[in-house]
Amino acid sequence: MTERIFRYLREQQPETPCLVVDLDVVENNFRRMRELLPAAHIFYAVKANPAAQILARLATAGSKFDTASRGEIELVQATGVAVDRISFGNTIKKEKDIAWAYQQGVRLFAFDSEAELQKLARVAPGARVFCRVLVDCGGAEWPLSKKFGCAPEMAKDLLRKAKEWGLDATASPSMSAASRPTSSNGTRRWARSRRCSSRSPKRASICAWSTWVGGFPARYRAEVNSIEAYCEAVGRALVRHFGNRMPEVIIEPGRSMVGDAGVIQSEVVLVSRKSANDRKRWVYLDIGKFSGLAETMGESIKYRLRTGRDGTRVGPVVLAGPTCDSADILYEKTEYKMPLSLKPGDKVEILSTGAYTTTYSSVAFNGFAPLKSICI
Amino acid sequence: MTERIFRYLREQQPETPCLVVDLDVVENNFRRMRELLPAAHIFYAVKANPAAQILARLATAGSKFDTASRGEIELVQATGVAVDRISFGNTIKKEKDIAWAYQQGVRLFAFDSEAELQKLARVAPGARVFCRVLVDCGGAEWPLSKKFGCAPEMAKDLLRKAKEWGLDATASPSMSAASRPTSSNGTRRWARSRRCSSRSPKRASICAWSTWVGGFPARYRAEVNSIEAYCEAVGRALVRHFGNRMPEVIIEPGRSMVGDAGVIQSEVVLVSRKSANDRKRWVYLDIGKFSGLAETMGESIKYRLRTGRDGTRVGPVVLAGPTCDSADILYEKTEYKMPLSLKPGDKVEILSTGAYTTTYSSVAFNGFAPLKSICI
Repeated sequence: MTERIFRYLREQQPETPCLVVDLDVVENNFRRMRELLPAAHIFYAVKANPAAQILARLATAGSKFDTASRGEIELVQATGVAVDRISFGNTIKKEKDIAWAYQQGVRLFAFDSEAELQKLARVAPGARVFCRVLVDCGGAEWPLSKKFGCAPEMAKDLLRKAKEWGLDATASPSMSAASRPTSSNGTRRWARSRRCSSRSPKRASICAWSTWVGGFPARYRAEVNSIEAYCEAVGRALVRHFGNRMPEVIIEPGRSMVGDAGVIQSEVVLVSRKSANDRKRWVYLDIGKFSGLAETMGESIKYRLRTGRDGTRVGPVVLAGPTCDSADILYEKTEYKMPLSLKPGDKVEILSTGAYTTTYSSVAFNGFAPLKSICI
Repeated sequence: MTERIFRYLREQQPETPCLVVDLDVVENNFRRMRELLPAAHIFYAVKANPAAQILARLATAGSKFDTASRGEIELVQATGVAVDRISFGNTIKKEKDIAWAYQQGVRLFAFDSEAELQKLARVAPGARVFCRVLVDCGGAEWPLSKKFGCAPEMAKDLLRKAKEWGLDATASPSMSAASRPTSSNGTRRWARSRRCSSRSPKRASICAWSTWVGGFPARYRAEVNSIEAYCEAVGRALVRHFGNRMPEVIIEPGRSMVGDAGVIQSEVVLVSRKSANDRKRWVYLDIGKFSGLAETMGESIKYRLRTGRDGTRVGPVVLAGPTCDSADILYEKTEYKMPLSLKPGDKVEILSTGAYTTTYSSVAFNGFAPLKSICI
């Protein structure tokens, strides 16, 4: 799928480090997911990669947009997308930002707490709101937490209150499944929160299946189920729980839209050992944790690598970034092997890096510029 | 020390989140350290906070500058500082950046490997070079690693090679002590590497005592030894090991120059519970791991907090940032207590945040702008 990117890198030789995103792959991912889950509204999670060209391509293909902030809403607006295709999906919003979004015409908001609901009732009267529910996250590659969502019982109460307060939340809580839908845990828990919601007064009108990390995946080192398998599992679960009274379904893919569509090219700055008998070499790249590869935090996401010397003899390495920061190590515990002949100046491609790289990049840590990005 | 900052915040009410740095505190820190270690050349570690006004104030006070990249060298040059006051202290440098720095007139470079030394010999002929040596890091608050420095035995070999290759490394390896000098481990190890160096052909000419995190500290929640105690320990160790044949001593403080000189003001966006009987409240601020507080990674650095409601009843909280990212949690395992009356819109000051905050800030993760910074 990324042959076009490798050709671009060969021919253009952009300065490293640099992310190249293939817009055709992004569009294909969108179309494939729409085919696989025709009943769902796809809200692209802008935070995964907010590049203007990506937003424009997805807008033309018919995508809607899940945003986290006023800044992201403005980015989507700048592509000419109508505000009724925008969801303000962050459950942590300043009241003034809700008010601003409402004035712009945004009418779909997420929440997971009473305090947030109060803000919405005050400054977004009559808006459609959906509640994120805590689910298990077994099997996710990026560390997940209880940061988003509330207990199903609380969600029921909150939705009742939302209605009392004049908001459009006529039905059951929506679900934010950050876990892999194909993992038995995730599906079971999702089903459980669904059952909870089915006891609410009216039938479901919005069901958000979020893809916050670990949901719809990209392909890193570990084998993942295909998007087809994920979508099939989601589709089956929807039919099982809603039958022919299907609610409005929202999915929020980010990583799975753009992750595999991007490749970062970096350069080896140094290869060294710490002592004469050091078993592992240290390979320092010109990109690290603070210039785009934040998701190597805790060595959680294990990217696939490619070098021009692949196929020759390899040996174990510690992989690190270029900053004077001891924490700027990509992989030390995880066993990575790289060619023994690797030298400063060699190019290293880091695959499936289209999501959650450019925006995580620091403004200028250690004086290094933020990760550059090129869409082709 | 930061009363001026609090007055500024009260009077000016800048938009949050925002870092305010008191330049008088920075200058005082510099002058105090120079008094305490009069024999040492102070090279301010620019990466800690490269704000132009901080560099200018330190330059006027007589500081030299430790830089990590071409970008940082350019920042220092922009303040009008002569290049002979600049050290290129990163051990991981692209050859073209070394060549550029050398052309600018930079003549002091760090290394810790043969490959780096080869680059220096090629493009920085005759430059002064110093080797960073691995030391133990017991007691440091920010996670340290083997990323910088090499084994003492290797350092000896490398310094011999440096000389053969026409570089100005006539003497012993310098030392990068990232550990606390007052911890017995650090001092012992430092002494050991010193002994190693004393066997080298000539006596020491440069001895770098780096302050890469955990060296000269700032004051977070844990009690730390005073700068006085640190400097005294360093001074004693120097006398013990070099007697009246004192080498040229370089220290590279960053955190201890600017950490305590800065306060971040943030705002509470949301206070919530995940279920009706949740023991801990979740407090979401408008700043998080990706907009300046990266050093809360692994909950390693525990900042002191201040609110307008301090002194009233408190309860345990999980503290998190505003992004739609599950990893954007500041403190979950660490017990933090905050006023029970805390509400959205309340201001929260995060103390001792002058170092390693603005530059760690992401370009625009989730559409949030990088941390603003004001020097007063």
